[in-house]
Amino acid sequence: MATRNAFYAQSGGVTAVINASACGVIETARRHARQIGKVYAGRNGILGALDEDMIDTSRESRQAIAALKHTPGGAFGSARYKLKGLDQNRAEYERLIEVFRAHDIGYFFYNGGGDSADTCLKVSQLGASLGYPLVAIHVPKTVDNDLPITDTCPGFGSVAKYVAVSTREAALDVASMAKTSTKVFILEVMGRHAGWIAAAAGLAGRKAGDAPHLILFPEIPFDRAAFLARVRECVDRHDYCVIVVSEGARNPDGRFLADAGTTDAFGHKQLGGVATVVAEMVRSELKLKYHYAIADYLQRSARHIASKVDVEQAYAVGKAAVELALKGRNSVMPTIVRKSDRPYRWTIGEAPLARVANQEKMMPRRFITADGFGITAAARRYLEPLIQGEAYPPYRAGLPDYVTLRKVGVRRKLPPRG
Amino acid sequence: MATRNAFYAQSGGVTAVINASACGVIETARRHARQIGKVYAGRNGILGALDEDMIDTSRESRQAIAALKHTPGGAFGSARYKLKGLDQNRAEYERLIEVFRAHDIGYFFYNGGGDSADTCLKVSQLGASLGYPLVAIHVPKTVDNDLPITDTCPGFGSVAKYVAVSTREAALDVASMAKTSTKVFILEVMGRHAGWIAAAAGLAGRKAGDAPHLILFPEIPFDRAAFLARVRECVDRHDYCVIVVSEGARNPDGRFLADAGTTDAFGHKQLGGVATVVAEMVRSELKLKYHYAIADYLQRSARHIASKVDVEQAYAVGKAAVELALKGRNSVMPTIVRKSDRPYRWTIGEAPLARVANQEKMMPRRFITADGFGITAAARRYLEPLIQGEAYPPYRAGLPDYVTLRKVGVRRKLPPRG
Repeated sequence: MATRNAFYAQSGGVTAVINASACGVIETARRHARQIGKVYAGRNGILGALDEDMIDTSRESRQAIAALKHTPGGAFGSARYKLKGLDQNRAEYERLIEVFRAHDIGYFFYNGGGDSADTCLKVSQLGASLGYPLVAIHVPKTVDNDLPITDTCPGFGSVAKYVAVSTREAALDVASMAKTSTKVFILEVMGRHAGWIAAAAGLAGRKAGDAPHLILFPEIPFDRAAFLARVRECVDRHDYCVIVVSEGARNPDGRFLADAGTTDAFGHKQLGGVATVVAEMVRSELKLKYHYAIADYLQRSARHIASKVDVEQAYAVGKAAVELALKGRNSVMPTIVRKSDRPYRWTIGEAPLARVANQEKMMPRRFITADGFGITAAARRYLEPLIQGEAYPPYRAGLPDYVTLRKVGVRRKLPPRG
Repeated sequence: MATRNAFYAQSGGVTAVINASACGVIETARRHARQIGKVYAGRNGILGALDEDMIDTSRESRQAIAALKHTPGGAFGSARYKLKGLDQNRAEYERLIEVFRAHDIGYFFYNGGGDSADTCLKVSQLGASLGYPLVAIHVPKTVDNDLPITDTCPGFGSVAKYVAVSTREAALDVASMAKTSTKVFILEVMGRHAGWIAAAAGLAGRKAGDAPHLILFPEIPFDRAAFLARVRECVDRHDYCVIVVSEGARNPDGRFLADAGTTDAFGHKQLGGVATVVAEMVRSELKLKYHYAIADYLQRSARHIASKVDVEQAYAVGKAAVELALKGRNSVMPTIVRKSDRPYRWTIGEAPLARVANQEKMMPRRFITADGFGITAAARRYLEPLIQGEAYPPYRAGLPDYVTLRKVGVRRKLPPRG
């Protein structure tokens, strides 16, 4: 087999562990130098390929690459950029192949969620139809945990741990102040269409009466009257109430509670501020003192409290992507396969991209309690393994010592794209 | 010296380490059983004394008391309850003395900020004027870091660390997404009147260009035009901009940017939501995509990322409070005395409560850069030592194993207060 170069790119919202996948890809490629020459990374994701703006990872030291394993964010830059359908914008796909050809790139590792699995599949198909030999492997990543087939998505376990830890901590704070001060605390978490992250907050509670007392899921149409009654009842009984609300919580008519009317580059509605909507309800209807926190990017970048299992899985899918490529697999995604819950045992499997792309894995209804405000034992059995273990980064001067790469550019060989 | 009991209470907003001070008080008292009989803790702070609703800490195991050192929130309950002046509400003070007398309480350890130092002083004065022998020691605590004389206030170092770590992490996230998505990230932090917490976020940056790019301090009247110009310039230069805003940021006319018109039990204005005010400005004036996080209680309860120095100091002031009491000191507060910056060396001193009560230590102007948007080297020299070291709590099933006390009540001896 001839030595060919690889292209790696990060796509969509980054996570606390996406760089651990990059580390897995690069370290594994380095161990197979006869098959894989250099790993070029896209500067700002797929844009780096379209613009022929690539980073030569061979210019990074072994230590710097190893440090990716404990560094959050997207070390090479990511992009919210969805390539259109092949028929709508064939030129963009052809440009990708052109850049790959110019740099003898035979391996395409695309690290993202559902949208990027779709792109990865299309690039692979176009390569085949143009007679350009290209191995395209999708490396799963998304805090939303909504990719199909895989047991979980790298990035999710760490958000889950952050949200569960933060809920437990804030609840202790509120409980101790409730007699004379804040009665209701609201934590807004991510999760546009699926309540996986909100559900993870449920792990903070161990027994009846523990916080969080109510979780508002995107899957359950918001019932204002039932919600307010439950908050009132909870405050009457426990003196305080902790509510976790997903940014994707919806009214019965399907509109987001936090609908602000703006959209992002993918055409998804841009949300945020649902905590204030809920807080205002608590204030005006129940006259209770409230506080709210909006975790936003803090939750998905919190490498300092990452799940050890998640870090290991993120690295493993990066490593597996290279190994699958070298075994001649194409248009696939390495997956996490759960072997048992307790103890949690998992291994790496694979799924064809055609079965992954544009599929959203919703949370099963059986993970949500009958009243719609909590998680079931089944949810707990699924979620608990994913937050196990701590994988602390090294510290320097009191702060996590995250790596900054040199990011040396690869010399351009083509004219700029039109 | 006759054996007498002690009363310990937590006051005001709790912190990630206030229980470490409780641990210091209780463990030290247990080592001096000939002088101090039992330590009773107020259920919900000073209300526990007024209502004769006290917790017998002798019913807690040695392990449970030791675990307070790694448990956030207020383990006995705290209260936002300010006793009025002696002349305005003498009855309340007399009630305190009556309860202390009924339970042979000779030591009063009050763990709080400026308001509680004032209460502690008044209780001590009334005890003296009524001929009731009482030793009153204030144990410093406040995330606002605004107590005078002491080098820092236990609780602050851990918030400082949380805020600096979170800023660094979120900045990596935003930087990697900026090309196609969010350009401006805003983190709202606590600090009603002083910018200590906001300043701590400045530690996240090491060199020019590092986030945070702008800090909005309560000390600097908000200059809308200058602010917007700086955000624009920052995005032009770095492609993104990270802003940390204190909840106490004010307009030139003195009004809070986030003034919602409501007040808390102490008559302080209740703030919150300044991040949305700033975000709206960025959106409407600069048309830039933004995200914002509101850390709220997460920042002050984040025991999982507490500063080791802070935990040690919190314990030390609790321990010192008991030792000062046993040395016959009265109406004083143990303080942190800085001996050197690098390495940070500190020892315990003391300050008379008359010099502590109702004094607010503002951040010196020389800690803020001339342009008003950053911290100086002097600020860094002061702040950096306070976030040193990690003091991770133990974990169980992926979550911090925080202790829940038994909280056995002390039998009442008095009729309820009228």
